[in-house]
Amino acid sequence: MCYTRQMARNQRILLAARPQGEPKLEDFRFDEQPLPEPAAGEVLLSVVYVSLDPYVRGRMNGGKSYAKTLELGDVIEGRTVARVLASRNPAFAEGDWVLGRAGWQTHALSNGEGLRKLDLNVASATAWLGVLGMPGLTAYAGLLTIGQPKPGETVVVAAATGPVGSAVGQIARIHGARAVGIAGGPEKRRALLDEFGFDVALDHRAPTFEQELAEATPKGIDVYFENVGGHVLRAVLPRLNDFARIPVCGLIAHYNQSAPPAGPDLSPDLLMRILRQRLTFRGFIVGDFADQQAAFERDTLRWISEGRLKYREDIVSGLHACPQALIGLLRGANFGKLVVRVTD
Amino acid sequence: MCYTRQMARNQRILLAARPQGEPKLEDFRFDEQPLPEPAAGEVLLSVVYVSLDPYVRGRMNGGKSYAKTLELGDVIEGRTVARVLASRNPAFAEGDWVLGRAGWQTHALSNGEGLRKLDLNVASATAWLGVLGMPGLTAYAGLLTIGQPKPGETVVVAAATGPVGSAVGQIARIHGARAVGIAGGPEKRRALLDEFGFDVALDHRAPTFEQELAEATPKGIDVYFENVGGHVLRAVLPRLNDFARIPVCGLIAHYNQSAPPAGPDLSPDLLMRILRQRLTFRGFIVGDFADQQAAFERDTLRWISEGRLKYREDIVSGLHACPQALIGLLRGANFGKLVVRVTD
Repeated sequence: MCYTRQMARNQRILLAARPQGEPKLEDFRFDEQPLPEPAAGEVLLSVVYVSLDPYVRGRMNGGKSYAKTLELGDVIEGRTVARVLASRNPAFAEGDWVLGRAGWQTHALSNGEGLRKLDLNVASATAWLGVLGMPGLTAYAGLLTIGQPKPGETVVVAAATGPVGSAVGQIARIHGARAVGIAGGPEKRRALLDEFGFDVALDHRAPTFEQELAEATPKGIDVYFENVGGHVLRAVLPRLNDFARIPVCGLIAHYNQSAPPAGPDLSPDLLMRILRQRLTFRGFIVGDFADQQAAFERDTLRWISEGRLKYREDIVSGLHACPQALIGLLRGANFGKLVVRVTD
Repeated sequence: MCYTRQMARNQRILLAARPQGEPKLEDFRFDEQPLPEPAAGEVLLSVVYVSLDPYVRGRMNGGKSYAKTLELGDVIEGRTVARVLASRNPAFAEGDWVLGRAGWQTHALSNGEGLRKLDLNVASATAWLGVLGMPGLTAYAGLLTIGQPKPGETVVVAAATGPVGSAVGQIARIHGARAVGIAGGPEKRRALLDEFGFDVALDHRAPTFEQELAEATPKGIDVYFENVGGHVLRAVLPRLNDFARIPVCGLIAHYNQSAPPAGPDLSPDLLMRILRQRLTFRGFIVGDFADQQAAFERDTLRWISEGRLKYREDIVSGLHACPQALIGLLRGANFGKLVVRVTD
């Protein structure tokens, strides 16, 4: 890594337009700024990795969400691992590795708030964005706190080769449950069995998917970890057992929808199922479970070291690759935790 | 009450046809049988009151539900208060008042299972079917266990003059929350304020209902006790606060629907709200909370004696009145706990 700042400029990717449906490259705008100088108490960061995650699609819309949405002209949101290039904050030294939320840019100022020093002897820089980061805690807290799998129960997870889904299935098995993973395509299906140790793996693109799901869940479904919505959820609903728990973590099938799809209206059916079968649907975001961070890291590091928790990363090169990589992520094109390497 | 059995016959109302949409009188069939003789261990009951409750509509459909649905020719399901006419079970004596589930008939045999002796000095026979019975426990457990209202929070309940809704609002206030009741028509609206002490009362039939709900919930809605679904739920959804809890107790607007209504499909919107606002939708039925029975009765009796929990009953005469009364109940025609007096 080069620490010289001569001639360096801050390259950024901004929100140019709110996407209608699937984001297009034109919804993003590149821009370059002079490197800012850190004021007293600030650090200047050189971003090394940007994490790409589905929730970013939601931030590109206007309107109310669980977090402030992006304004036009804002740097696109994202968690980052960076190095401290210059520090006027006594808590950070030049060369420190830090976890933060600098977004889609090569450099950023920070007053240190929300910035965390990383020990790369404990885990790799990219692991702190995935299995040990936001997606890992999402899986851990959502499954254990809302899903509450019990030994012998059946846990189904969609988008199962993703960083959240793959952890959900493995943590379910660690807790004695049966893990059924759903992913798109034969390669991902294979990996669920061979790489992540799911009990059963299904391809939601298969024409016989619905029937295969029924056969894969002879005792019904006790926990459905919801990442996708759409036709996967519709296939899951009739298989849910009474008192099933559905942590609603993501709805990637619906993020690009700008209007309600055509009818019939299935919401009464959904509500009647909730009533008749005493289901619990509970939405959450990772920030709701910040108090579990320490337990999560302790357990996850142990499971990794014991070989019980595997993870896969998909590392793409160059800040300019971010828009296309996010578009692919929303289409299910990638495999593993998607991270963009911004600087070498 | 007359204890002689000479010439008495058991009059029953049976399921003649599965209703398509709203039940019609032709879906019921009257029938008369000789009085049965109790075998060893059995009692013969003379039914005094039959409770009519919306859940009965669900039992008239085929298919899977939380309880065995009725078969064609079965006596219509219902909780009852009865007197023991003859006993060959040492646990019950002739003349005892008992709570049970004899259904829509004037007499029934029981082996004593699920039969509970009542002390009418503690509360009236009809109270055991309403405020101290299944609807009361439904309100108590659903609100306190799932809704978990906190002081200063806003609790909204639909079908608020019904036996469940009126208890929900009053128990919410006892726990320091603000109670907003929704009912159909000006008379019921008036009663919510004057009789049950709700903070605000709204008429869901008013053309300005949606706007009135917004004005009545300036700090949003923290708990929505769901009894109805339909347009009331649609008006409530945009008012829900983050982390709102929605105990799903009933969906009277949908019980008569035999197919999904026309589109657009609002289920993705519902799921996106659950996700973004971290809502909890949890279905339940009263049987799930049987372990709260003692605490419920203790608290309820105290609140009634302190004048903090009011209830209203709507008592109709004659077993033959049951079908029309149930049809009216599903239309929202009655006011208060609907009970049919079968014998004087």
